[in-house]
Amino acid sequence: MEMDYRNLDQTEAFAALTKMAPADIRTGLSAKRIASYAVPAGAGLTYRYATMPVSSEHLALFQALADEQRLIEKYRSLLAGEIINTGEKRLVLHHLTRGRVLGAGTIVMADGEEKGEFYAGQMERIRIFSQAVREGTIVGSTGKAFKTVVQIGIGGSDLGPRALHLALQGWARAEEIPQLEARFISNVDPDDAAQVLDGIDFETALFILVSKSGTTQETLTNRDLVLQAMERSGIPGLDPAKHLVAVTSKTSPLASSKAVLDSFFIDDYIGGRYSSTSAVGGVVISTALGYDTFKRLLEGAHEADILALETGITANAALLDALIGIYLRNVLGCTCTAILPYSQALSRFPAHLQQLDMESNGKHVNRYGEPVEYPTGPVIFGEPGTNGQHSFYQLLHQGTDVIPLQFIGFKESQRGKDIVTAGSSSQKKLDANLVAQIVAFARGKDDDNPNKRFAGNRWSSLLNADRLTPETLGALLAHYENKVMFQGFAWNLNSFDQEGVQLGKVLAKQVLAGCGGDEILKAFADLF
Amino acid sequence: MEMDYRNLDQTEAFAALTKMAPADIRTGLSAKRIASYAVPAGAGLTYRYATMPVSSEHLALFQALADEQRLIEKYRSLLAGEIINTGEKRLVLHHLTRGRVLGAGTIVMADGEEKGEFYAGQMERIRIFSQAVREGTIVGSTGKAFKTVVQIGIGGSDLGPRALHLALQGWARAEEIPQLEARFISNVDPDDAAQVLDGIDFETALFILVSKSGTTQETLTNRDLVLQAMERSGIPGLDPAKHLVAVTSKTSPLASSKAVLDSFFIDDYIGGRYSSTSAVGGVVISTALGYDTFKRLLEGAHEADILALETGITANAALLDALIGIYLRNVLGCTCTAILPYSQALSRFPAHLQQLDMESNGKHVNRYGEPVEYPTGPVIFGEPGTNGQHSFYQLLHQGTDVIPLQFIGFKESQRGKDIVTAGSSSQKKLDANLVAQIVAFARGKDDDNPNKRFAGNRWSSLLNADRLTPETLGALLAHYENKVMFQGFAWNLNSFDQEGVQLGKVLAKQVLAGCGGDEILKAFADLF
Repeated sequence: MEMDYRNLDQTEAFAALTKMAPADIRTGLSAKRIASYAVPAGAGLTYRYATMPVSSEHLALFQALADEQRLIEKYRSLLAGEIINTGEKRLVLHHLTRGRVLGAGTIVMADGEEKGEFYAGQMERIRIFSQAVREGTIVGSTGKAFKTVVQIGIGGSDLGPRALHLALQGWARAEEIPQLEARFISNVDPDDAAQVLDGIDFETALFILVSKSGTTQETLTNRDLVLQAMERSGIPGLDPAKHLVAVTSKTSPLASSKAVLDSFFIDDYIGGRYSSTSAVGGVVISTALGYDTFKRLLEGAHEADILALETGITANAALLDALIGIYLRNVLGCTCTAILPYSQALSRFPAHLQQLDMESNGKHVNRYGEPVEYPTGPVIFGEPGTNGQHSFYQLLHQGTDVIPLQFIGFKESQRGKDIVTAGSSSQKKLDANLVAQIVAFARGKDDDNPNKRFAGNRWSSLLNADRLTPETLGALLAHYENKVMFQGFAWNLNSFDQEGVQLGKVLAKQVLAGCGGDEILKAFADLF
Repeated sequence: MEMDYRNLDQTEAFAALTKMAPADIRTGLSAKRIASYAVPAGAGLTYRYATMPVSSEHLALFQALADEQRLIEKYRSLLAGEIINTGEKRLVLHHLTRGRVLGAGTIVMADGEEKGEFYAGQMERIRIFSQAVREGTIVGSTGKAFKTVVQIGIGGSDLGPRALHLALQGWARAEEIPQLEARFISNVDPDDAAQVLDGIDFETALFILVSKSGTTQETLTNRDLVLQAMERSGIPGLDPAKHLVAVTSKTSPLASSKAVLDSFFIDDYIGGRYSSTSAVGGVVISTALGYDTFKRLLEGAHEADILALETGITANAALLDALIGIYLRNVLGCTCTAILPYSQALSRFPAHLQQLDMESNGKHVNRYGEPVEYPTGPVIFGEPGTNGQHSFYQLLHQGTDVIPLQFIGFKESQRGKDIVTAGSSSQKKLDANLVAQIVAFARGKDDDNPNKRFAGNRWSSLLNADRLTPETLGALLAHYENKVMFQGFAWNLNSFDQEGVQLGKVLAKQVLAGCGGDEILKAFADLF
């Protein structure tokens, strides 16, 4: 069956939606609404949208839009291995990295192999390797156990794994799971590697080189920089090849390199920004925090993936979040979304979502290459609360544009090292601030002094759980991946290519080659 | 003389500007334009705007707007100590923290003292204190020299100092300036403090408690958490009071505390987001990186402050940047600005600017409390290049909205630990990428495949210098402070209060006190 792909503005449901005014949450909130506008999002995570400007009439139109755009069918065909990434003629299989590893997932054949088996096989190799590293049966070239892992990668090989590691470090500490220190080198700026390598003990360091193509300029340059630093260290018997593993595709130049201890494979069906649950995130998290931790993350993600199959929008958190986002963007004219985790452990999670969302749906043509006549992906930004409250929340409360907000919060801290002052724990204070902000944004406040007036109707959603564990983190990650996927389907985009990054790469090469007679490039290059 | 404050849309120049179409930079670039559209911004920093959509006609109208809104006169009256922060009836004196310390700056009397003398006096105390700490004449309570300083503060007491410290760490390392390690605790989330304190040696740690009011919930809570951890450490002879200094106002409850080693003072005329060059940034940077480093930062900032007095817009980088920003925001309808430093050392600088800009100008009423009829401060976000290229640049290149870009770049790395691969150093590759991006965004590229088509006319500016030193960093900081100030004047806002943060604080207290019968607060609070 040929899937029916059409632009958002060709649907009847969207036409009806454009006539819908936002629900007034300044006055329309009630305990009942707060309790009922909630959808399970997997692994104990709940998506709450009582403070979004929607009523049952909006919800009916969202359902109509989901049905008319056949969003669940499109997700199912993605899972079934159809060529969803049409621009690059590729399957899109990141769901399978968790589904199949956990013994579920569809049978998809490609390149002469069963892909779920391939991903699960790599994960089994990662399990064995990471255990050996952690138990000290695989050691460095001078016989010392590894104490530090350093991921060298950029974009999807950096942001997701880095955010996930940071998010789980405190949890692992509280659970008394032994940890290897993890560091990350990403930028081609030599100051990045210099800082990360400052004071490193090469004898106990394992470098993880992550590049799907095996040709990423930043990553190869930083590998060479690390190798040079190891050589210059003058440590007797140090063999760099015994301190380096690769995560790459089987066909990349890296895959056949003899200069690495081991290689773990991904393929073209896992986009960089969707690769955290593949070997790209798997090697670093399994070595640093244990394979079991990573597997629990996969379990949470898989739970969210299953829930995302629900056809009813009020049972499908990712789908509903996506459709509310479409309403905010395409009907109410919002250009940005702020991600506001009330959890210091999630401090780099917004940076990962920034890539996930903006690289997937920052597109001006539909999947057939035709310009679309409506806005697509918004700008994503965010910092953890309560820090953001003392920074940019002023604009969120009283600026001239309405910025939709996505709060994330937990009942318990990760580490449990808390203090009671003035009658409450720090965690209680954190959560009280979160609650206060949701209500302040929604209801506003009148005042005789207009400078102290809050208009209210500043819309937010909340994703909450008891504690940030590997499972809830996995569900959180997959929630956003699936939200972005559904929005891409609704907008009729190909969310899985990134042609917009190519021109810069070509011109950078031209600059390095002397600008090739291009007067404009030369004029800028001469400044540096 | 009573200063004439009027709304942007009451000026003739703005009315004329609204009729101006953007200049076409897709085709209009030339080496000559690139060379001439450049303004010194202090300390070797240059502001370049050849790839902004402006022509000499735009510039003439910008000049007319600057004159009509009397932007330089307003800056002069701020420097002279007029009550510019009308909402809170306060002077605005952050320029004096650098000007007067360097022997310049206006004589401003307030609270019975000459304020420049007060700031310079505090800085002199910081010089003496920081030298004593660094030389080991002031030591911890068990007789050991301090090795680590930990700033406890949030918002302006965190973002600016943290970003500046990170920006200068590599420079200080290359210059072989001895360093004390610096850490920062900000969030009330107990996991933040727990992580920062993980593995800390209390005997050699000096905590810097920063709160102007002395009542900031997060900061007092984290102080108590630190004190409790010190007590629980069981280290014989450890006296917490000998490991704590305060940065606060003279009238705050902290100022009279006996439980600190020393106190350094600020006052109500230095807003949090403008306090990096006061004792708020001074104590941590001087102890960690040396007072001379901090003084050089002040020198760079002061240079930029002096340049910002120029009445001709093409000689005043901050003013011109501000006016171009007004054109982008109020005529061309841009809602965001991306800050893109090609320098890993500046990786947290966008987060500081996010506060600086969005908290200053995220306002919907003018300085008289009347609602304005035009958009004010934009959303600010950003990550360092080349990392961003592999993340959200897809949307910047091919998304449906145009996001103006502010690039920052340097000819040399900070640390000088570089490698030549494939014929170029990492720094050359970094700069080649920066050049390539500026040109790619401006010129775009046609292609038969619309998916590979770049529309061009994606506007950017560039702030560049030879190297990120304390002086260039100071100039960079002051450039943005002054840009934001000029925009606030042009929009007729009070950029120096933040009433929008109050409601959340009040409601958070109410939640902690049991919600006071508020059904909505209670319904959310019960989730946590």
